[in-house]
Amino acid sequence: MTVYEVIDAKKKRRVLTEEQIRFFVRAVAQGRASDAQIAAFCMAVLLNGMTDEECFLLTDAMAKSGETPARPPVPGVIADKHSTGGVSDSTTLILVPVLCSLGVKCAKYSGRGLGHTGGTLDKLESFSGLRVGLSAAEFAEQIARVGGAIAGQTEHTVPADKRMYAVRDVTATVDSIPLIASSVMSKKLASFADVILLDVKYGDGAFLRTAPQAERLARLMVRIGARAGRKVAAAVTNMDAPLGDAVGCNAEVREAIAVLGGKKNALARLSLFLAEKLAAAALSLPEAEARARVEETIASGAALQKLAQIVSAQGGDARAVHDPSLQPLAPQKSVLCAEKSGVLRIAAKKLGEACLLLGGGRQREGDAVDHTVGILLRKHAGERVQKGEPVAEVYSRGNADEACSRAAEAFSYPRAYELPALVHTYIRAEDL
Amino acid sequence: MTVYEVIDAKKKRRVLTEEQIRFFVRAVAQGRASDAQIAAFCMAVLLNGMTDEECFLLTDAMAKSGETPARPPVPGVIADKHSTGGVSDSTTLILVPVLCSLGVKCAKYSGRGLGHTGGTLDKLESFSGLRVGLSAAEFAEQIARVGGAIAGQTEHTVPADKRMYAVRDVTATVDSIPLIASSVMSKKLASFADVILLDVKYGDGAFLRTAPQAERLARLMVRIGARAGRKVAAAVTNMDAPLGDAVGCNAEVREAIAVLGGKKNALARLSLFLAEKLAAAALSLPEAEARARVEETIASGAALQKLAQIVSAQGGDARAVHDPSLQPLAPQKSVLCAEKSGVLRIAAKKLGEACLLLGGGRQREGDAVDHTVGILLRKHAGERVQKGEPVAEVYSRGNADEACSRAAEAFSYPRAYELPALVHTYIRAEDL
Repeated sequence: MTVYEVIDAKKKRRVLTEEQIRFFVRAVAQGRASDAQIAAFCMAVLLNGMTDEECFLLTDAMAKSGETPARPPVPGVIADKHSTGGVSDSTTLILVPVLCSLGVKCAKYSGRGLGHTGGTLDKLESFSGLRVGLSAAEFAEQIARVGGAIAGQTEHTVPADKRMYAVRDVTATVDSIPLIASSVMSKKLASFADVILLDVKYGDGAFLRTAPQAERLARLMVRIGARAGRKVAAAVTNMDAPLGDAVGCNAEVREAIAVLGGKKNALARLSLFLAEKLAAAALSLPEAEARARVEETIASGAALQKLAQIVSAQGGDARAVHDPSLQPLAPQKSVLCAEKSGVLRIAAKKLGEACLLLGGGRQREGDAVDHTVGILLRKHAGERVQKGEPVAEVYSRGNADEACSRAAEAFSYPRAYELPALVHTYIRAEDL
Repeated sequence: MTVYEVIDAKKKRRVLTEEQIRFFVRAVAQGRASDAQIAAFCMAVLLNGMTDEECFLLTDAMAKSGETPARPPVPGVIADKHSTGGVSDSTTLILVPVLCSLGVKCAKYSGRGLGHTGGTLDKLESFSGLRVGLSAAEFAEQIARVGGAIAGQTEHTVPADKRMYAVRDVTATVDSIPLIASSVMSKKLASFADVILLDVKYGDGAFLRTAPQAERLARLMVRIGARAGRKVAAAVTNMDAPLGDAVGCNAEVREAIAVLGGKKNALARLSLFLAEKLAAAALSLPEAEARARVEETIASGAALQKLAQIVSAQGGDARAVHDPSLQPLAPQKSVLCAEKSGVLRIAAKKLGEACLLLGGGRQREGDAVDHTVGILLRKHAGERVQKGEPVAEVYSRGNADEACSRAAEAFSYPRAYELPALVHTYIRAEDL
């Protein structure tokens, strides 16, 4: 068998055999397939599709292409959560401490921001000294001791996905449902979480633009998880407007802390929804009971206390949990005002791009991120505003003209506008 | 504009604009597009297709991606010919001297063999001392002085095609009609020939397996040529059986010399057919008149004399034209006999592969070729043979078991078998 033959078969719309898929993924992981061959394969999959079974096999082969860390010896189930990426989405920083404080072990592998979307690892590093590069042993030990850990997967995990993703990123082959599903789920299956909650976003600020696309991806990933013997559920959620009121690392961490302190907004609503679902699944509770416990652990301050514990455990300065001045915003503030009266509509992607232009995101892997720059919204999407009212503050170092004008493009003021429902659907394996 | 956007547009089945196509080809030629991006583009073209206009623009951009040698200041038209590749096809070595001896200038750019197919440059090097790497100036000077030259295109010609072809070769993206057409025609348009004859082969030993595929490719290339203001015609010809009776460099050169000396077989028939068509087009003669002149120049020995002149002009030992011992066959001879009685059927590809196994071809670019090894057929395809009769001789150095058994696989002996017509169709721009 050759890599060429596998590409050729997919090009000819054949259903790939298990042997072909495992051979190809090994060749990718071991460097025997060239970048050009990976690109041709990905384009053929994007255009010719894959059956569910092919996609599961691809996911499984990728998951096993590198190190698979051993499950720490803890009682009960271990939970993980994944978002397909959005703007102003710091649910992980809320969800993990909430669940841990309820006794649910969380093994959260996260990523970095790319393009207009933010990444949990970048945000976590807003805590001075915090390490996201935990070894498998450190990660497991922290889960056993503190209840949860948030870290990046090591370079030895799912090497096949790392290579494939790097190629897809530059060859217009990212937007393939089977390729996205196998990329996301291979990373989840390479870990040991028993219960996995996926947040599949659609809309202006998401990689997938429409709800039906997101729903297709969500269903496929749930089926792949079930086929692999994991308990997977997925929420399909809207990402037309930024989820929270802050964009930028320090700004978003401060907002997550505020939500753990009781703040209510769309970010809080989605975080509590996801926490309820995960707690119900992990603790086998009725949803109403799970919901009550989630609200209680926030109200009592236990969740916020758990965040401080996790931050400390990873070497971060936990004083920031109570002292926002330790996560400062950049010194120069520009206020954006409504250009006319109407209902405020905010395009998440443009706002994410504005943050990128400020230096708060990365154009490509490896770019440095400025944690202090960002944007704070003074009004929410869907709210009626008067011409001249402040709608946002832009925090920058030096000239922010380009970022401000990009941010201004994010705002429009139609006469009527209704933000789509935050949660479009919730899909469990047992419902499929 | 970015390379990514061009790939993305083709992925989405859009018709690419002239600007997009020229931008992409420049990026390929200048190294700004990665191999992975080229592969993704080629797979998207293969699966989503291209309009004739897109294909012409791609061809034109590729043709102009490198050096385009100046036309030598000679009167009359300049001719070129191209075959899509086959087994035992030494028509160029016959066609060029025939046409030159009739006063038609020939600027023949040729290639090397790859896989089971032979290449004219390798065969030419059977003449001791002959140089196929002529500079543009040497090439032009020889056309003016001798009437014709056969050489490889320099590495500075059509660099975009060189990169794209190298990528296609390993990514299962060779068999795309628009990509084949643009690759072939870009090399032809980068040269200055006014009249171009294409021999588009189909069948067992060709890259395209069916006549309709070959006809589609032929029509597309003729249209591209017409759009570029060149006079292009194409013959769609069968390549189920090897064209001549010899496979291997020295063996094929000896056979071409024999045809110029009056030998009659399928190779001679096709060579004379192509010569007639080219002479008629280049000299504006009725075909019957062209045919008579072609036959006359062979009968008089003038064509053979012209071959000797061309060989000498390129530094080769022209004595071989009259002394076959200067192009010897390998010392060890194995005779293959008919395994049963029947009508002989010969699968060209297996025979080409057998020659490759002998060391007479190359698996990949850069491999060395042994000119002395090869196969001589003692019977023709379509001929009735008796069990035990010799059908072929295999010339090798050392162990030839694998090559002999591959060659034996090329022969079958059905009760009835009729070889398809040698020339399936002949297509001129004015007929489209």
